[in-house]
Amino acid sequence: MTAQLNVSDFLHGGDYNPEQWLDHPEIIDQDFNFFKEANINDVTLGIFSWAQLEPEEGKFDFSWLDDIFDRAEAQNGHVILATPSGAKPRWLAEKYPEVLRTNEDGSKNIFGERHNHCYTSPVYRQKVQEINRKLAERYGHRKSLILWHISNEYGGSCYCDLCQDAFRDWLKAKYHTLDNLNRAYWAKFWSHTYTSWDQVHSPSPLGDQTLLGLNLDWKRFVTDRTIDFYEAEIKPLRELTPNIPITTNFMGGNPPESHVHYDLDYQKFAQHVDIVSWDSYPNWANDYESTAHLAMKTALMNDVMRSLKHQNYLIMESTPSQVNWHPYNRAKLPGMHQMGSLQQVAHGADAVNYFQLHQSRGSSEMFHGAVITHQLSDKTRIFKEVAQVGQDLVNLKPAKATHYQSAKVAIVYDYDNMWALDDSRNYSNETKKYWRTIQEHYQYFWEHDIPVDLISTQDDLTPYTLVIDPMHFMMSEAFTEKLRDYVQQGGHLVGTYMTGIVDKNFLAYLGGWPQALHDVYGVEFQETTTLYPKQHNHVAAFDKTYTVNDYADTVTVDTAQSLATYQDDFFAGSSALTKNTCGKGTAYYVAARTEEAFLEDFYDQLADEFSLKPDLPIEKQGPTVSIQVREKAGQQFFFVINFSEKPATVTTTKSLTEVLSGQNVAAGTQALKPFDVKVYTV
Amino acid sequence: MTAQLNVSDFLHGGDYNPEQWLDHPEIIDQDFNFFKEANINDVTLGIFSWAQLEPEEGKFDFSWLDDIFDRAEAQNGHVILATPSGAKPRWLAEKYPEVLRTNEDGSKNIFGERHNHCYTSPVYRQKVQEINRKLAERYGHRKSLILWHISNEYGGSCYCDLCQDAFRDWLKAKYHTLDNLNRAYWAKFWSHTYTSWDQVHSPSPLGDQTLLGLNLDWKRFVTDRTIDFYEAEIKPLRELTPNIPITTNFMGGNPPESHVHYDLDYQKFAQHVDIVSWDSYPNWANDYESTAHLAMKTALMNDVMRSLKHQNYLIMESTPSQVNWHPYNRAKLPGMHQMGSLQQVAHGADAVNYFQLHQSRGSSEMFHGAVITHQLSDKTRIFKEVAQVGQDLVNLKPAKATHYQSAKVAIVYDYDNMWALDDSRNYSNETKKYWRTIQEHYQYFWEHDIPVDLISTQDDLTPYTLVIDPMHFMMSEAFTEKLRDYVQQGGHLVGTYMTGIVDKNFLAYLGGWPQALHDVYGVEFQETTTLYPKQHNHVAAFDKTYTVNDYADTVTVDTAQSLATYQDDFFAGSSALTKNTCGKGTAYYVAARTEEAFLEDFYDQLADEFSLKPDLPIEKQGPTVSIQVREKAGQQFFFVINFSEKPATVTTTKSLTEVLSGQNVAAGTQALKPFDVKVYTV
Amino acid sequence: MTAQLNVSDFLHGGDYNPEQWLDHPEIIDQDFNFFKEANINDVTLGIFSWAQLEPEEGKFDFSWLDDIFDRAEAQNGHVILATPSGAKPRWLAEKYPEVLRTNEDGSKNIFGERHNHCYTSPVYRQKVQEINRKLAERYGHRKSLILWHISNEYGGSCYCDLCQDAFRDWLKAKYHTLDNLNRAYWAKFWSHTYTSWDQVHSPSPLGDQTLLGLNLDWKRFVTDRTIDFYEAEIKPLRELTPNIPITTNFMGGNPPESHVHYDLDYQKFAQHVDIVSWDSYPNWANDYESTAHLAMKTALMNDVMRSLKHQNYLIMESTPSQVNWHPYNRAKLPGMHQMGSLQQVAHGADAVNYFQLHQSRGSSEMFHGAVITHQLSDKTRIFKEVAQVGQDLVNLKPAKATHYQSAKVAIVYDYDNMWALDDSRNYSNETKKYWRTIQEHYQYFWEHDIPVDLISTQDDLTPYTLVIDPMHFMMSEAFTEKLRDYVQQGGHLVGTYMTGIVDKNFLAYLGGWPQALHDVYGVEFQETTTLYPKQHNHVAAFDKTYTVNDYADTVTVDTAQSLATYQDDFFAGSSALTKNTCGKGTAYYVAARTEEAFLEDFYDQLADEFSLKPDLPIEKQGPTVSIQVREKAGQQFFFVINFSEKPATVTTTKSLTEVLSGQNVAAGTQALKPFDVKVYTV
Repeated sequence: MTAQLNVSDFLHGGDYNPEQWLDHPEIIDQDFNFFKEANINDVTLGIFSWAQLEPEEGKFDFSWLDDIFDRAEAQNGHVILATPSGAKPRWLAEKYPEVLRTNEDGSKNIFGERHNHCYTSPVYRQKVQEINRKLAERYGHRKSLILWHISNEYGGSCYCDLCQDAFRDWLKAKYHTLDNLNRAYWAKFWSHTYTSWDQVHSPSPLGDQTLLGLNLDWKRFVTDRTIDFYEAEIKPLRELTPNIPITTNFMGGNPPESHVHYDLDYQKFAQHVDIVSWDSYPNWANDYESTAHLAMKTALMNDVMRSLKHQNYLIMESTPSQVNWHPYNRAKLPGMHQMGSLQQVAHGADAVNYFQLHQSRGSSEMFHGAVITHQLSDKTRIFKEVAQVGQDLVNLKPAKATHYQSAKVAIVYDYDNMWALDDSRNYSNETKKYWRTIQEHYQYFWEHDIPVDLISTQDDLTPYTLVIDPMHFMMSEAFTEKLRDYVQQGGHLVGTYMTGIVDKNFLAYLGGWPQALHDVYGVEFQETTTLYPKQHNHVAAFDKTYTVNDYADTVTVDTAQSLATYQDDFFAGSSALTKNTCGKGTAYYVAARTEEAFLEDFYDQLADEFSLKPDLPIEKQGPTVSIQVREKAGQQFFFVINFSEKPATVTTTKSLTEVLSGQNVAAGTQALKPFDVKVYTV
Repeated sequence: MTAQLNVSDFLHGGDYNPEQWLDHPEIIDQDFNFFKEANINDVTLGIFSWAQLEPEEGKFDFSWLDDIFDRAEAQNGHVILATPSGAKPRWLAEKYPEVLRTNEDGSKNIFGERHNHCYTSPVYRQKVQEINRKLAERYGHRKSLILWHISNEYGGSCYCDLCQDAFRDWLKAKYHTLDNLNRAYWAKFWSHTYTSWDQVHSPSPLGDQTLLGLNLDWKRFVTDRTIDFYEAEIKPLRELTPNIPITTNFMGGNPPESHVHYDLDYQKFAQHVDIVSWDSYPNWANDYESTAHLAMKTALMNDVMRSLKHQNYLIMESTPSQVNWHPYNRAKLPGMHQMGSLQQVAHGADAVNYFQLHQSRGSSEMFHGAVITHQLSDKTRIFKEVAQVGQDLVNLKPAKATHYQSAKVAIVYDYDNMWALDDSRNYSNETKKYWRTIQEHYQYFWEHDIPVDLISTQDDLTPYTLVIDPMHFMMSEAFTEKLRDYVQQGGHLVGTYMTGIVDKNFLAYLGGWPQALHDVYGVEFQETTTLYPKQHNHVAAFDKTYTVNDYADTVTVDTAQSLATYQDDFFAGSSALTKNTCGKGTAYYVAARTEEAFLEDFYDQLADEFSLKPDLPIEKQGPTVSIQVREKAGQQFFFVINFSEKPATVTTTKSLTEVLSGQNVAAGTQALKPFDVKVYTV
Repeated sequence: MTAQLNVSDFLHGGDYNPEQWLDHPEIIDQDFNFFKEANINDVTLGIFSWAQLEPEEGKFDFSWLDDIFDRAEAQNGHVILATPSGAKPRWLAEKYPEVLRTNEDGSKNIFGERHNHCYTSPVYRQKVQEINRKLAERYGHRKSLILWHISNEYGGSCYCDLCQDAFRDWLKAKYHTLDNLNRAYWAKFWSHTYTSWDQVHSPSPLGDQTLLGLNLDWKRFVTDRTIDFYEAEIKPLRELTPNIPITTNFMGGNPPESHVHYDLDYQKFAQHVDIVSWDSYPNWANDYESTAHLAMKTALMNDVMRSLKHQNYLIMESTPSQVNWHPYNRAKLPGMHQMGSLQQVAHGADAVNYFQLHQSRGSSEMFHGAVITHQLSDKTRIFKEVAQVGQDLVNLKPAKATHYQSAKVAIVYDYDNMWALDDSRNYSNETKKYWRTIQEHYQYFWEHDIPVDLISTQDDLTPYTLVIDPMHFMMSEAFTEKLRDYVQQGGHLVGTYMTGIVDKNFLAYLGGWPQALHDVYGVEFQETTTLYPKQHNHVAAFDKTYTVNDYADTVTVDTAQSLATYQDDFFAGSSALTKNTCGKGTAYYVAARTEEAFLEDFYDQLADEFSLKPDLPIEKQGPTVSIQVREKAGQQFFFVINFSEKPATVTTTKSLTEVLSGQNVAAGTQALKPFDVKVYTV
């Protein structure tokens, strides 16, 4: 079942918790005036409001929320309504301790913080369904209600007896027999053979931590259990409000790595939401990387989120200034808020929402940035920059019905692979760096404005001219064959070191690579050399020499052609990059981790060969300006952003309209201020 | 009720635990001979002696202690008698487990270590009162008894059910209603509303850790609970020995930060003791700072202790050589013991006591420095240096009845503020550095021999010409008004960045600064920029440019005058230092954290303007020589100390007497050896 | 009772767990073919096979193991049979939870991992004895059975109530009365007096952690308890197979420190095994030290193992390529496997065994190197290098009956001393570095091919010309006298800073050094200066100046002669190295920790003076080539190994036979390839 989000404007708003100010209605009055002033057109209500909505078990108070709905509607605003399960009331935990989470070491939580309920507890599921039903009954037909926001940033796991039982059931459904389980976990090793299902227990610091299959299954189970809880949450909503779309706010991209969210398989979870939304908190203005480098990593995260459903998505949270949980909570510099907000729109976001609209006066997030700060003023730098973005989004309305341009390049990433690789007792834990590797492969394309999708192993490969599949350590046989089919039918593939080592049960492939990998790459994997940090090899290719770090596979070349050779160590002279023709396509094997320049030169050749570079009416110098395209039938919008504290120029090659200013622009040089954004259309 | 310490000599002695040697009386004989040799005139007895005094429940053995009293009195020595509550006997913990502390995670201690009893346990309080009563009855009228030493280095906290109940009672007394509590804790946020007092629990890694008001109240409660226990301890002593003064040994100043003691609010606790005493363990001879820099930090700690009651104080513990718990336990170099001991006297100490007089043969502190070491000899370097200090204190007897000179400068520090600032989710945890900031402001004055008091928000400000109030993040409205009154009546005030942000409930001030701060500084705070470590701004002032680190407030200037401007970032050109006339006084706002040179130049101007520099008959070159003054009616003693491994000179501008040597010294150049001390008087 | 290992070949083989492949007999067939091909002549069976041998309580299945014995015997292979106690079956833990270990904090393990059973549990001891008896009954008379391998890498400790009781019994047996215990633990300090045996508890993070005697006794107890368990394990084996020798695999030498095993006193444990075996895992090809430096540290570890029983020993585990638990799991470079394997043989190893022969397909050790890898091929680099070593060992058969040359130099090390020194609250925990100090003293001798034994305080000193006794902080009075006797009778002794401080009860020696130390060294220890890392002193000696780091003892010289003096600090000019004649011998006291060059020059003088340098028919240049000698009556074998990635040469001074190649070699220059090994004999 899927419901659509039907809004004709870009959304601009965010989390609003007026229950903090009910004894100061003049503050709420002022808030709504400020919303209007800043072109804020949506409020996300009810997150963590359970104690206010149900102050005692079974006694509900919706009056204050009715009032906020009325106020929103009075100025034609939209409401995103949250279910309150992310933070339970104290009375609930007091009466039903089973709703509290049990930790990995067996200790039981007391009430506190949030996001820490048991996902299995029948009582908790029942109580959540009750209040969700009440909310749907009361607000489901409000004209302002456009979207359900389920809970908040699902995460973590519970290790209580109820969850242990659920895990056992999950394993029974997967493996059917203990014999299958023992085989999959290679449990004869170290006498770990299970002789009863009751012996199954989650990984534990007091028990098993190195049964690799168990570790991985537990992570898979946690995703499934979370989705199962989510499905229970939304049941009354689907029943009562089938036309209101549903989302839950995903996470990812946090400093310093801008890493994809780790603990839940969002590629799986995304199949259960109507629209993807996420909370985006890059630390602009940090001191360890250029603005452009962080922009690249943030672009990637936006492409990840868009690719989950291959649809536009929403920014559900972002900060107008600073957060309160980075190691250094520096506010954005002037202009950065516009820069960062419109970057997200450029990559396919249809909303710029904030956490939060009005800063909490006390407690843990009182210093997290907000549109309306403790100064209670519309004269702050923050407020003005927010209002600027509000105006931008109004001006961008003609671009609202567009989608991000379709990509000819895809990068594969996979949760099972990431988890398995990190848990594998091989290589070096310090240098595996799966996501950084994804970023390194992505960088060339971002710098050259070539659109990229970040896809799962379940996605269709055939729309893509080039598929890049880095460090695919854990790969199913099915996917090896999918890759072979793709290449044989004309696709182009890039694979790398540390690929095709284990199957989905975390068991090693025996007798060498799966046949399909051998066929597609035309080489046979021999061994991976793990280099210490001060050790390097070198690769000669493209008339240059490049440094090798961390990892170097050695391969024997069969049908492939060698494009680069190692220069050092006992495998000097052997192939470090190969190209194989397989059916109608080609496959490249990048055997070593190199400095970035190698990937840049390599992909530049492929971009030329496969005609990947975009044909744009705007030319740029250097990689710190990014040009992203949203389009609909007959019209393209070119988002040109200067990710630098220095001015820049671009050259428009024909007459264009700049949408934010509404001005027509003749062909020629266009100036960009620091952190500037221009949106051109024909 | 206050009793006075009446001793005509400086005290020189320390902790003595002869119960370790009862089967070797010849060692005790020799110890007392050595005491005489080293001019040791006091012994602190009974610390941790409970198991010896009460070997079985209700069976007491005081015979050995009687003997030690006799021995002390036989050579006219003083006795400081400790209550033994710092370390309970095993039988007590075995029979009454409630006396053992419960940890933050709910785990219960078994017997071990020390300083870890429950402060609430009725049994423990009863048992402590019983033994204290016995001690008072038996020794209260001994002529040698000059002082009670209550327990030892109170610290830590207990999280047992008894303490949780006590905490609930404390909160009820403070807030009266749950509604008040919820408002103060801003508990509606995240659905944390309390609906029953039973739901209250201390902060916990298994529960709440980010309810800022709760965290702060717990810290306040721990101080109050500790004082409550202390008051229970001293009850029989006040009853039986009303004329014997009472102290407990405070802590602070430990390497590497020389930080004021953190966990207990000594400004509050000090109101309950008759005289302040503390344990001082600077790591002289370290490798990361100059001797003078550590001397400055140690001077500050002594000024802190003296300022607690604005009275002379006692060094209750110090080491003659090395400790055993620093990361590197290096002994003092020759001369450093005299240097460090007399520095304390110079700042107002009336005692130089050691932990310990005779080194323990085994167990955890067997390698902590002691006057009599395992060598059992008076020929060791340590013994000779101790005996030298003993002789010095005899020679200094004319200076005994003096007090530290009165200060015209005060620096405000506040425990609530320190705790709140450190717990605030803002800025950067790495760089808040409240105490280091206090040190940076103090440094100028120490280097120029200008006396400083370190005062609390409860202290009277009017005696001071200049009050410095750094990083006063949490400030009550009452104190904002106290500051305004002080300045309006002619006082001079220096405040800094990150001031006046939250009230005493840890709730943000709304609508900008409290009016009184606005009035006094004549500016309005806008925002604090948190810089990453590699980021810097610069300030132009006094015809120079200074580097800005970590923090830079931006302010709008109202009635103030700008004395310095930022050079970089979007707020280049705005004020970084302002001066405001308010009534008869002036107030300066230092908006940014700068390199030390800025404060030096700034305070040098103020020192001239407000005539803060002392008028001394001794002139020095450079800041590594320090001159501190003790005085009484008609006489001043000038403690001149060379905090350097290099020789130095000072110039006496008139004829003086050097007290340690007893020599008269004509005006002229006086040589100081490395680490040398001279005490001059007219 | 001692049984001898009677095998005429060097052993080459290792751990083999075919129970993982019972459903693939073709793999087992192939394995045995590969064994033959690689000259593998032994398999170690049954480690961690308990769940396969006894799938349900009391139901045994030996059929598969019978088959493997048959296969081994069919190709004249040897079997080392392991008892399976290192990993219990799940059903055992499920039915008898007492077998699971309790942790230091009182938490109880659930089933998981391995090596974590309670050493006291009567049930576990009974179950282990049952299965061991079955194994002995069934396989004790198999002709292929050459050795029992008891459990696996004994380690860790249990803190359950059963173990607490056992600890109390152990203490009662040692101290007899509480009074003795209290005196030994110096328990009057801090009121820690025991008044009941029930109050005794192991050191605990919830209780006592600084009662130094208790900490040390617990470590001693853990060794004794482990040996007690081991003795229970072997009881049925001794009864049924009195002629089959018994070993258990010891550990040590792991990166980065190549430290001797820490937790168990192997000097004590070794008295209970028939032959020493150990698991050797140096990280050849790392990036932080030269191959020669790691070779020195590894040579030392081999000398340690040989010296435990002053007999040849076995390498029970090693990797043919890489491990999976180093921070960087780099495989050996080509040639390193031969280099490292034959180094062990050169130092007295009679076996080169691997963990493991066939790589596990899944679970925690699936990526640990193995002879037969997932590629299931004899064409891998690993396999070929293993086969090379197999051939080498065949060629070396004439050297099998030899022993390592007898040493004239001994270095003393002691477990009590190591534990006590590390736990002493003195000096700096960062820089104690006992084992590194042992290595620094050893280095000179290794570099000059002078054989060294690493001996315990129980060993006879009289066979040695020179005894080196570094940092002997905890020394019994008996050993001080043993040292004096040794020197008086003509021995030569070197001692160092931080010696003779405490007795075996961890109580300080009073009144200065024990008389015997004073007599032997002719100096009196005064104090130890602990230097911070950036602080240094210097020593003038041998017409040079050397840097002093970390520690500098000051001594007063009595009968000794000063050979070197300090240059800095207050003790400049005092002795840093002394020489004393005592009876017929001499004793040197090295008062400070110096740069390596000092020890090199010092020992070079002693080597000349005491004629320690070997007389070899091979001359080398520089320290990266090592020459070790195995010998028997009438014949010597010279193992010449190039521990460098660069070629080297040696000069043979007479005609020799090179054993690996079988070639006769005329006197002259002999080339060594990188990592090359030559074995010469006359």
